[in-house]
Amino acid sequence: MKTINVKEKLSLIHDLWKPKVIAELNGQQVKISKVKGEFVWHDHKDEDELFFILKGTMIMEFRDKKAEVGPGELIVVPKGVEHRPIAKEEVWMMLFEPQNIKHSGDVISDLTVDKYEKI
Amino acid sequence: MKTINVKEKLSLIHDLWKPKVIAELNGQQVKISKVKGEFVWHDHKDEDELFFILKGTMIMEFRDKKAEVGPGELIVVPKGVEHRPIAKEEVWMMLFEPQNIKHSGDVISDLTVDKYEKI
Repeated sequence: MKTINVKEKLSLIHDLWKPKVIAELNGQQVKISKVKGEFVWHDHKDEDELFFILKGTMIMEFRDKKAEVGPGELIVVPKGVEHRPIAKEEVWMMLFEPQNIKHSGDVISDLTVDKYEKI
Repeated sequence: MKTINVKEKLSLIHDLWKPKVIAELNGQQVKISKVKGEFVWHDHKDEDELFFILKGTMIMEFRDKKAEVGPGELIVVPKGVEHRPIAKEEVWMMLFEPQNIKHSGDVISDLTVDKYEKI
């Protein structure tokens, strides 16, 4: 039951595409991440995923369309929907998703994180 | 899969202590609320609750201590822990919590909301 300062936690992140856990509740985790460039196409079979953008603008590509998500905006990607986050400039985000979610679904890439560090 | 602008959603809220649902995922809801003054002491038997402050400073009182939560800060109140949010000035917040949570636990007050409106 302590106050968590998101900016302070963000200052501890020095690598891209490596989400860190800052809070847990109800089997869900709150993560923060800094990203730049393109992630891999993937989906999550059983988990919906929320992206809340804190800085920069993320393009969320879907197979048939794309969405632009800027600071103070969020998007929910439902389970089973293929998506690819793209950040032309560095983007800082907060994620809200189940604690057992796999970073890049069943796709393995150089960016895949196996275990989420808590900070 | 559409972008949700939190500030735009906040501009639709004209009443205090009445959380509105802006997104749903994995049996959880994202709500936003404007509050001012003191809420009632209560707990949630089965649900953890996350408060992410967007504007103003909230005091979260517990029976044995209190925490100050300012803009860009969050706090998780675990299930079963009695708490009372206090806002000396108007506070805008985002909430993450299970979709079946009762607003003021088993306590009924003038501020209790029975059904959460989606905006």
